[in-house]
Amino acid sequence: MFMHMSFTVAVAGASGYAGGEALRLLLAHPEARIGALTAHANAGSRLGEHHPHLFALADRVLEPTTADVLGGHDVVVLGLPHGASGEIAAQLPDGVLVLDLGADHRLTDAAAWGHFYGGAHAGSWPYGLPELLHAGETTAAAQRETLAGATRVAVPGCNVTAVTLGLQPGIAAGVLEPLDLVAVLANGYSGAGKSLKPHLLAAEGLGAAQAYGVGGVHRHIPEIEQNLRVAGAADVSISFTPTLVPMARGILATATARLAPGVDPRDVRAAWEAAYADEPFVRLLPAAGDGLSRWPTTAATLGANTALVQVGVDERAGRVVTVTALDNLVKGTAGAAVQSLNLALGLPETLGLTTNGIAP
Amino acid sequence: MFMHMSFTVAVAGASGYAGGEALRLLLAHPEARIGALTAHANAGSRLGEHHPHLFALADRVLEPTTADVLGGHDVVVLGLPHGASGEIAAQLPDGVLVLDLGADHRLTDAAAWGHFYGGAHAGSWPYGLPELLHAGETTAAAQRETLAGATRVAVPGCNVTAVTLGLQPGIAAGVLEPLDLVAVLANGYSGAGKSLKPHLLAAEGLGAAQAYGVGGVHRHIPEIEQNLRVAGAADVSISFTPTLVPMARGILATATARLAPGVDPRDVRAAWEAAYADEPFVRLLPAAGDGLSRWPTTAATLGANTALVQVGVDERAGRVVTVTALDNLVKGTAGAAVQSLNLALGLPETLGLTTNGIAP
Amino acid sequence: MFMHMSFTVAVAGASGYAGGEALRLLLAHPEARIGALTAHANAGSRLGEHHPHLFALADRVLEPTTADVLGGHDVVVLGLPHGASGEIAAQLPDGVLVLDLGADHRLTDAAAWGHFYGGAHAGSWPYGLPELLHAGETTAAAQRETLAGATRVAVPGCNVTAVTLGLQPGIAAGVLEPLDLVAVLANGYSGAGKSLKPHLLAAEGLGAAQAYGVGGVHRHIPEIEQNLRVAGAADVSISFTPTLVPMARGILATATARLAPGVDPRDVRAAWEAAYADEPFVRLLPAAGDGLSRWPTTAATLGANTALVQVGVDERAGRVVTVTALDNLVKGTAGAAVQSLNLALGLPETLGLTTNGIAP
Amino acid sequence: MFMHMSFTVAVAGASGYAGGEALRLLLAHPEARIGALTAHANAGSRLGEHHPHLFALADRVLEPTTADVLGGHDVVVLGLPHGASGEIAAQLPDGVLVLDLGADHRLTDAAAWGHFYGGAHAGSWPYGLPELLHAGETTAAAQRETLAGATRVAVPGCNVTAVTLGLQPGIAAGVLEPLDLVAVLANGYSGAGKSLKPHLLAAEGLGAAQAYGVGGVHRHIPEIEQNLRVAGAADVSISFTPTLVPMARGILATATARLAPGVDPRDVRAAWEAAYADEPFVRLLPAAGDGLSRWPTTAATLGANTALVQVGVDERAGRVVTVTALDNLVKGTAGAAVQSLNLALGLPETLGLTTNGIAP
Repeated sequence: MFMHMSFTVAVAGASGYAGGEALRLLLAHPEARIGALTAHANAGSRLGEHHPHLFALADRVLEPTTADVLGGHDVVVLGLPHGASGEIAAQLPDGVLVLDLGADHRLTDAAAWGHFYGGAHAGSWPYGLPELLHAGETTAAAQRETLAGATRVAVPGCNVTAVTLGLQPGIAAGVLEPLDLVAVLANGYSGAGKSLKPHLLAAEGLGAAQAYGVGGVHRHIPEIEQNLRVAGAADVSISFTPTLVPMARGILATATARLAPGVDPRDVRAAWEAAYADEPFVRLLPAAGDGLSRWPTTAATLGANTALVQVGVDERAGRVVTVTALDNLVKGTAGAAVQSLNLALGLPETLGLTTNGIAP
Repeated sequence: MFMHMSFTVAVAGASGYAGGEALRLLLAHPEARIGALTAHANAGSRLGEHHPHLFALADRVLEPTTADVLGGHDVVVLGLPHGASGEIAAQLPDGVLVLDLGADHRLTDAAAWGHFYGGAHAGSWPYGLPELLHAGETTAAAQRETLAGATRVAVPGCNVTAVTLGLQPGIAAGVLEPLDLVAVLANGYSGAGKSLKPHLLAAEGLGAAQAYGVGGVHRHIPEIEQNLRVAGAADVSISFTPTLVPMARGILATATARLAPGVDPRDVRAAWEAAYADEPFVRLLPAAGDGLSRWPTTAATLGANTALVQVGVDERAGRVVTVTALDNLVKGTAGAAVQSLNLALGLPETLGLTTNGIAP
Repeated sequence: MFMHMSFTVAVAGASGYAGGEALRLLLAHPEARIGALTAHANAGSRLGEHHPHLFALADRVLEPTTADVLGGHDVVVLGLPHGASGEIAAQLPDGVLVLDLGADHRLTDAAAWGHFYGGAHAGSWPYGLPELLHAGETTAAAQRETLAGATRVAVPGCNVTAVTLGLQPGIAAGVLEPLDLVAVLANGYSGAGKSLKPHLLAAEGLGAAQAYGVGGVHRHIPEIEQNLRVAGAADVSISFTPTLVPMARGILATATARLAPGVDPRDVRAAWEAAYADEPFVRLLPAAGDGLSRWPTTAATLGANTALVQVGVDERAGRVVTVTALDNLVKGTAGAAVQSLNLALGLPETLGLTTNGIAP
Repeated sequence: MFMHMSFTVAVAGASGYAGGEALRLLLAHPEARIGALTAHANAGSRLGEHHPHLFALADRVLEPTTADVLGGHDVVVLGLPHGASGEIAAQLPDGVLVLDLGADHRLTDAAAWGHFYGGAHAGSWPYGLPELLHAGETTAAAQRETLAGATRVAVPGCNVTAVTLGLQPGIAAGVLEPLDLVAVLANGYSGAGKSLKPHLLAAEGLGAAQAYGVGGVHRHIPEIEQNLRVAGAADVSISFTPTLVPMARGILATATARLAPGVDPRDVRAAWEAAYADEPFVRLLPAAGDGLSRWPTTAATLGANTALVQVGVDERAGRVVTVTALDNLVKGTAGAAVQSLNLALGLPETLGLTTNGIAP
């Protein structure tokens, strides 16, 4: 039981993919009253031109992204390029709950920001991954405390959430080596945003898998490392390779780590079972041999705020293999924002969110 | 305002695509309490093996499809092959609301049944397309009356809904010739069900468009003709060609008709505007020149109980062209069932359904 | 047996999809020596940046598109936007064989040009569809005579070839009504070229079918009508609707026509059998009941200069339904160019071309 | 210059994907005369039913797979399930060149066979990866000597070729640690063969990435390890995870290894440059900063016997990352067979094969 707590919410960058998805989820949230929608180049046009799927908001006109327009709401969601969200956020009143879907406030380490993003560091905000384990925890509680009552939330990067959820139980439990992690991801095209670049055209992407951001340059790397340090890793290093595959949405992250010395392979799974047994949005798939689908498919997460995780031990290779599937725009972005919003406002964490994907 | 009217619902054929989609929607319906899930060959297995996306029901065990198992519920949804649904339906108590997602009870004409399906005709039930115009109507009311309080509902075929919604306003208004209609559809693979046939393999379907059911043999033909007769056509004939294209869901139906003699092309659009202005689940896209997306895309309907319709006049060719997009498993199947269920039980028609699709 | 007739060939617009495909085919042509590659905005860059699939030419540098650069070759292929090809073609020497992959020289009717394209009409060239039936023919010969020794060739539009091949045998044989034709096409994204437009992004196109160019506005309409007039139609009208579906290449064209009065449905197929029995690049699929795949799939034509055609009679609807599958960049564009080139130079028509597609 | 050496070739398993692709390539081979086509369950049907893309062979009738039918040819290609090829191969005359597309004769280690495949080991044959480096080599010569004049060839597994080509230059040069390798692959559906399994349906695969064969169980693991031992690794271990992504063909393999102690990162690339500078079918993509596409896409290899390779060093993570793209049915299967056939018969290695892919 909870008291009704209706709130108004503005979405900046409403014509983009992240902003559009935030709107889709907020339309389904029983307490949200959608206020201003803003855009930069698209200000003045109607939302239906950009998001014909948002039937209920088709005729809403986009306003310019200014502190004046955004400031009068209880909640502001920023779906802006990095740099832009830091700038506008600095102008918003303290009492407004601001959720930044972009990167500006994720990293605590200014040097890492400078190395991977360049430019001035906007500082860090409470981090919108409620399931993040802190060192010594077997189930996540500390991160939820950080988010309770917060007025600023940095929503995690989509790839970061996938890799963190895959690996963190083993890091926190000490059964994985945090050095020499390797992650390779299959990514849908919406993760690249609505950018007009040749390699993002349908003619190029259909029927093809292509690598990008290879070799330690991807901006999600320091954020993964930061999370795993929170989970207890003394030092972390990860080789991280995303690849584009022909789907509009979805991330399938294969993340592996060496088994820590002296760990019995039969004891590995328990860490994941403990971490996720009671998580509403993370499902550890059943172990082999019980008749259920064993390895995740992104299809099962489409449109849902769900991450599916599986873990196995490859004893020949001495590595633990984890596979995580999620919808990059939901659990990877806008769903994480709504989940964090619920925590920040003291609403039930699952309010307005679904765990059931759309398949086939 | 309405009184709560909680109901129990069983789903037969729960391991198939139509049954799975019914479950996804019923999970989001505030009054539905999901009871027995049944299957034929898959009885005894758990739902998570077949629908890993239905997180909330993953551990539910499938029971055999019998009248005993199904009979004790307020509502039964049948997602069964044609023939099978007629057989089980005949054994269910009169007071139970039965929604048949299959074909057995759609056609009123036993001869048409015999010609297209073969075998004995199970008779016809109230038809679950609330938006179906009856002769003389400009907006649909009569069909809703048919469904109010009904205890048996025949849910329409997915292609039928798409073509009917596209053409019926012009038929009912007398601006279209009902003879010599031509419809060609781009269809997603889920419409073919979970059949293990070579041409339905991903390796075959990816990157390819293929025709099937060409030349007047498709079983949805008599059902379209029946609907358009209800809408006022004295006689109807349609050339109907579905094609499989590489998407999991969705129908894009291009349906054309000759302009009726003496009709001013400028008067055509008014019939569609009148028919759909107040429909909660059918959106006529804006006319040219107003800056919104003019022609439908199936992407905008994914997961939603929405049909997007557009109409144009090709004066050179003397034909009116309509394009309708919908999700074959939602507005084309399970969403239509829930919408009909709401009407049959006296609940608000839109309860538990969304109009906002998932895109991109 | 033929004498070797090595020729040099330049390709203008080499960084685009049509130009790239022309290069792929010319690389496989035993008599072609590839000369200058030119581009507009991309001049100065290397081909490998734009077409990483053309391994053999990866390091070739693109030159500017000028008459000086192009003029010194035996053959010039123009893969340019309409308007641009007319302009450069006017500056090329008479003795050079020029094949225009664009629209500038396809239409004989200046008024139709003005209506659909606007601007000045560049005049018409011999038309590069060797299989085009002329009135009174049962198999195509006249068009090949037109192309023999030609020094200018207008290569047909991709949709035009698909619809023309589907319908022309019945038009020429008088078994089809040429008025009130209806064609709906499923089109791959490469047909839209390498344009950076939002609706052509992979995130938008994956999993979606979308209509465009609906309502009698598509520029391929007058060209189809022109072809069918050549095939003997006194007057022609066609409703033509292309749709984008999630494939990189391919056209599946469903084109229907009313059966001409008094024609016995059993006599229809003979016209197609006669027209295509000896065509090297058009295959009429077997009639029903003989155990072979009956309806075309674009998958079977990928990369090949093949059109697959099937025809059926829907007696209930009084319409003949034809379905044609082809690769828009091969038989629809660059393959037609090479086939015409072979005819123009007196080489074997099939030289350097394959009929075997790449599947699955 | 070479003498003509026409040969007859039979293909067993002609209705499957590997057999079909062998036929497509053999149709383009100037010296091949295609003889018997055989099948098991499909014997008696025509090839056009199974491979409508093979226009030139559509009417050929499939014979049963027996030594009598196959034995009278110069060359026999076996596209059969493992177990079946070993059985039929044992009955074929010594003088016939037999190329096994299946697994039966790839592994030299009977224990590894038993562990991963089970059952009796059929023994090993000369291995059809001409580019395989032997210890001490900087460019591949020894493997070609093994294949010259061979009468039995075991064609490699498709994933194996991708991972081997990615990693072997660094293994042979000693700049990579051969222990603790990690490879994750994005795989097209044709790699799974024409199996009628639910997870291979188009409705399931479209729009989804799914993991399978995770955790050290995939049968390609011992074959990769075997190859890298040939390349000089004293001991090898690899964590190998394939994933299915929505494409019909293609493998994008991301394979990483730790930099060997004391190696200067600037010296790494030289090993790949030396290994592949003169390989006709392997292209090392240009280094960063020279303006060409840097990381491979499978689109560039469709239909071609080409592997595209790139290598980079992630100094933060201490790992070398390689990405290899190839067409699983060409360089991964049937193209490797034709290349090996050319070597075995003393024909030019590249005869009848193309390096140019089909894109977009």
